[in-house]
Amino acid sequence: MPRLAIGLEYDGTRYCGWQRQSHGDSIQAAVEDAFSGVADEPVTVTTAGRTDAGVHATGQVAHFDTRSHRALRSWLLGANSNLPRDVSVSWVQEVPVNFSARYSAVARSYHYLILNRGARSAIHRDRAWWICGDLDVGVMQTAARLLVGEHDFSAFRAAQCQARTAVRDLQCLEVRRAGSFISVHCRANAFLHHMVRNIVGSLVRIGRGEESPEWLQTVLLGRDRRLAGVTAAACGLYLTRVHYPAHLAIPEPPPFRPGDL
Amino acid sequence: MPRLAIGLEYDGTRYCGWQRQSHGDSIQAAVEDAFSGVADEPVTVTTAGRTDAGVHATGQVAHFDTRSHRALRSWLLGANSNLPRDVSVSWVQEVPVNFSARYSAVARSYHYLILNRGARSAIHRDRAWWICGDLDVGVMQTAARLLVGEHDFSAFRAAQCQARTAVRDLQCLEVRRAGSFISVHCRANAFLHHMVRNIVGSLVRIGRGEESPEWLQTVLLGRDRRLAGVTAAACGLYLTRVHYPAHLAIPEPPPFRPGDL
Repeated sequence: MPRLAIGLEYDGTRYCGWQRQSHGDSIQAAVEDAFSGVADEPVTVTTAGRTDAGVHATGQVAHFDTRSHRALRSWLLGANSNLPRDVSVSWVQEVPVNFSARYSAVARSYHYLILNRGARSAIHRDRAWWICGDLDVGVMQTAARLLVGEHDFSAFRAAQCQARTAVRDLQCLEVRRAGSFISVHCRANAFLHHMVRNIVGSLVRIGRGEESPEWLQTVLLGRDRRLAGVTAAACGLYLTRVHYPAHLAIPEPPPFRPGDL
Repeated sequence: MPRLAIGLEYDGTRYCGWQRQSHGDSIQAAVEDAFSGVADEPVTVTTAGRTDAGVHATGQVAHFDTRSHRALRSWLLGANSNLPRDVSVSWVQEVPVNFSARYSAVARSYHYLILNRGARSAIHRDRAWWICGDLDVGVMQTAARLLVGEHDFSAFRAAQCQARTAVRDLQCLEVRRAGSFISVHCRANAFLHHMVRNIVGSLVRIGRGEESPEWLQTVLLGRDRRLAGVTAAACGLYLTRVHYPAHLAIPEPPPFRPGDL
């Protein structure tokens, strides 16, 4: 039975998150319904990372098995015509049956987008976290460096997080300004629940001058969620890439480049 | 009676355009209602340029007169709290009573955004015109240069256009690629109805290789709308700046930079 990997993009605004829920629309249900329609049989999709309510993706990856044979272009066009307009498939590729979107992944990249200006934005509502007062990106970047590496990230973990261990390898944490946007790029082998949003909430406290960069290290070592900043808004978070070993030849999503669009 | 100028941003997707209409929501009505609420008296707003249904703005300018006295920050915050989320005020400034958002303007800039890639986009739906096949930006730019200058633009004018003359001074027409986006920047003293979208539709025909760059000059000189390309989709068009003489010190909007957001 062939296994297909798929690249997904979605605007998470009106969804209860990736996972099927009884109380609302999920990305998973939309994707499974769309591909089941093309396959003419029920399809169950496994994802690289379950995103929360309101969180977006430009580089989500998932896989499913099917007995149906279609040209790759037919899977792509068929699914995109079945899907609601706020979910789209970027590519479809056949993969070995031992490939798993989840377990074959070696790292995940998220980008968090802050809109830092004096007035709210009509165009970027639901696409970035609006912060009115000027943030100092220099001190945010200085603080960010202190978190890079393998650490126990309990301080940035949601109460409902079910992971067995809080140790994660944070490979990249970069804060950049592009016009009135600030993007925070976060790459790790895996993430705890709310980890990116809790880190961003703490970086913002530093960017506002309420805490020094060194405070972030104290928070990390304290391993106590109550010491960190607020959880940043879901609407600023994008799953931008799932990293796989190069020999699997999984397509790379386009680079994430926040602009004044 | 003080006169106030305002900077506006909007996502035009769900509006019938700038102008008040009996059959749908207009940007004008939303803005007038919001400022009337802050002013505690009815306010009538004059705009620099009436945008069509589905067209966006990041740098729209308007003005109104009011007997009410409020701090500029109170006008801004009050209006933004009254407005729907897809319309926002960027700034409010007092201007001389002889200032007109419409008649003091010396030029307008529009940007048209094309998303040129193999699959449709969930995130950029309603924000760019999706074109599937590869466009050659080089030949589009070569053709664009042929339109710059003062010409009779009848060939790119909608049938319902009510302007007395079709002569316009096209000061800039630049086609650029940024990743999978192509932006067309168009600056003129004033525009005819559908002029930008009709020019973009013709440029796309050239980018697809269906016509040579020189064809655009033939179309221009023919002054016949039926010779030009299709009208590009409204969702890709942004009014990005209204230009005023420098001594008026009207705030400049941020540069328009399409990105892979």
